[in-house]
Amino acid sequence: MQAPPFYRPVLGDLEEVQERLWRLARAVDDPRLAALFSHPIEVPGKRIRPALTLLAGRLTPEGREKVRLLAAAVELLHIASLVHDDTVDNAPLRRGRETLVKLFGPRVAVLVGDYLFAASAVLVCETGHIGVVRRFAETIMDLARGQLDEYLSAGTWPQTRGQYLRRIGWKTASLLRTAAEGGAVLCGAPEAWVAALREYGYALGMAFQIVDDVLDVTGVGGEVGKPVMADLRGGVLTLPPLLLLERLPPPNPLLALLRGEDPEVNLARALDLIQGSGVIQEALEIAHGFLQQAREALAPLPDGEVKGCLLALADYVVERRK
Amino acid sequence: MQAPPFYRPVLGDLEEVQERLWRLARAVDDPRLAALFSHPIEVPGKRIRPALTLLAGRLTPEGREKVRLLAAAVELLHIASLVHDDTVDNAPLRRGRETLVKLFGPRVAVLVGDYLFAASAVLVCETGHIGVVRRFAETIMDLARGQLDEYLSAGTWPQTRGQYLRRIGWKTASLLRTAAEGGAVLCGAPEAWVAALREYGYALGMAFQIVDDVLDVTGVGGEVGKPVMADLRGGVLTLPPLLLLERLPPPNPLLALLRGEDPEVNLARALDLIQGSGVIQEALEIAHGFLQQAREALAPLPDGEVKGCLLALADYVVERRK
Repeated sequence: MQAPPFYRPVLGDLEEVQERLWRLARAVDDPRLAALFSHPIEVPGKRIRPALTLLAGRLTPEGREKVRLLAAAVELLHIASLVHDDTVDNAPLRRGRETLVKLFGPRVAVLVGDYLFAASAVLVCETGHIGVVRRFAETIMDLARGQLDEYLSAGTWPQTRGQYLRRIGWKTASLLRTAAEGGAVLCGAPEAWVAALREYGYALGMAFQIVDDVLDVTGVGGEVGKPVMADLRGGVLTLPPLLLLERLPPPNPLLALLRGEDPEVNLARALDLIQGSGVIQEALEIAHGFLQQAREALAPLPDGEVKGCLLALADYVVERRK
Repeated sequence: MQAPPFYRPVLGDLEEVQERLWRLARAVDDPRLAALFSHPIEVPGKRIRPALTLLAGRLTPEGREKVRLLAAAVELLHIASLVHDDTVDNAPLRRGRETLVKLFGPRVAVLVGDYLFAASAVLVCETGHIGVVRRFAETIMDLARGQLDEYLSAGTWPQTRGQYLRRIGWKTASLLRTAAEGGAVLCGAPEAWVAALREYGYALGMAFQIVDDVLDVTGVGGEVGKPVMADLRGGVLTLPPLLLLERLPPPNPLLALLRGEDPEVNLARALDLIQGSGVIQEALEIAHGFLQQAREALAPLPDGEVKGCLLALADYVVERRK
C-alpha cells in the first residue's frame, strides 16, 4: 500500500511503531502464545490513529520517544477492540485474513483481546504520563460502551440522532480524540494546542464514522468489499437509514430490514428508497459539518507542515472510498 | 457473611470500597448500561484481594484514600476477569446468581467485561502513581496469559510441574501480588516492606490456587458446591492429578478423564486412584511450602496488628473449606 502523502513527515516513526508492535507480540516466551498475539498485529491497517498521534507529536521537537510509545499503544488498542468486535460478531475475515475467532474460537479470541488491551495499557504507562494513561483507560470504557449501546439498540426504532451521535462518539471518535490529544500532550505542546488537537480528533472521528456508514450503504467503490447494507441487515441503524426513517411512516422496507424481516425482499426496496431520497447526500453534509469543525479547531496552530498534514488527513477521511 | 477476624482493622474501608464499586456502576447515565455494569458487582465475594491491599496500606498512616482506590480497582479487576472467565466457560452461575453470559449471551458479557477492565484501570489511575498503574496493567496481561495457557494446555499430557506453577502464577498469584505490593507502595512504606509484601502476595496466591485445586478434587466440605473434579473433566490439569500422572504409566483413568474419554466410567476410578495415592496430602504440602514462604517474607515487617492479620489471612487461605 502506498502511504498517503500526509503521512510523509512521520513515515519513519510509523514504521518503527509497527515494528515495535511486532516485537512486543513475539517477545512472549511461549511460541504458542506468541503466535496468537502476533496474528491480529501482522497485517497493518490504515494506521490513521497512530499517524494522528505522531503528527500531533510533531508540534514541538520534544518527547519523540513518548509520542511513539503512545502511537503504538493507540494502534494496539484499536487492534484489541477489533479482535473483540470480530469475536462478538463472529466475523470470519479482517484485513483479508481469517480472524482469531474463526481460526481458534471465541475462547481464545476473547483472551487474546484481553491480553492486547492490557499490553496497550502497559505501553502507554511507559510514557510516564498519568494524565495520558487515564485518558487512554477512559477511552477503552468508551469503546466498550459504544459497542454495547450499538448491540442493545440493534433492531429498535425509534432512535434519535442524539443517540446515534453519542454512540459513534463512544465507539469511534473517542479513540481518535485520545490519539490526537495525547500526541500533543506528550510533546509538551501549550494548552491551547492540546485543546485544539482534542477537538480536531473528536470531530474527525465523527466524520470518519459517518463516512463509514455511508460506504456501508453505497458500497465500497470499485472493490470487492463487504456486502451492501450489512449494518442495517445486522440490525445496526446507521445515519442514512436513520435520516430516512425519521420521515417515512411505518411500516416500510427500511424498518422491516432493521428488524430482520424478509431481508431478501426488503434489501432491494430499502436501497431504492435510500437512493431516491437524498439522505446519502444529507449524511455526507453532516460529515462535512464535522470536517469543518475539525478544520476550524486547528486555527490556534501555527501554519506549517504538521497543520497542513492534519488538514489533508481530514480531507482524506471524508473523500476515501474504503 | 461473617467477616473473618483478620479483616477487622479494615472492615470500614472494605465497606467503603464495595459502595464505591456500586456507585461507579450506577453512575453511567444510561439505565440499560448501568444495570449491566452493576450485575457482576452486586454480590460481594470473599474480598481477599481488596482486604490484602487495605491491610498492606496500613503499614503506615499515609495515603489512605489512594489505598482505597487501589483496593476498589483490584476487586473490580478480579470481577472483570471472572466475567470473561464465565463467558469463555459458558458458566451459568457465579456467587449463587445467573451470570451475564447466561442472561444476555456472550456478546454482552464480553463487552461488559471490557468495560469493567477499563473502569478498574481508570480507578487505579486516580491514585496518580504511574508505577502502580503499570503493575496493574501487567497483571491484566498475566491473567489473560494464564487463562490462555490453561485453555491451550487443556487435555494435553505430559505437562510439567514447572508449567503448572507458571500458569497459576499468571492466573492467580499475579493479582494477589499486585494487591499486596500496591497497598504498601501507596502508603509510602519503605522499599524493604514493599518487597516483603510483594513476595508475600505472590506466595499466598500460589498457596491459594493449590488449595482451590485440592478442593476441586476433595469437594467443598459440607456444602452444595460445584461437582467434584470439574477441572479435570473440563480438561484442566490441576496439581493433585498432575502429581499422580507423574507416576502412573499410561493408559490410566486419570489420563482418560483428562482427555474427555468415558467420563462416567473414569470419574469414579480416577477418584479412587487419587484418594488411595497420597497426592492430595502431597499437594497440600506444596501449598504449605508456599504458605511458609509467605510467612517468612513478612519477617522485615514490624510486629503489630497488620502483620498479625496478614499471617492470619495466610492461615485462612490454606485452611478454608470453600
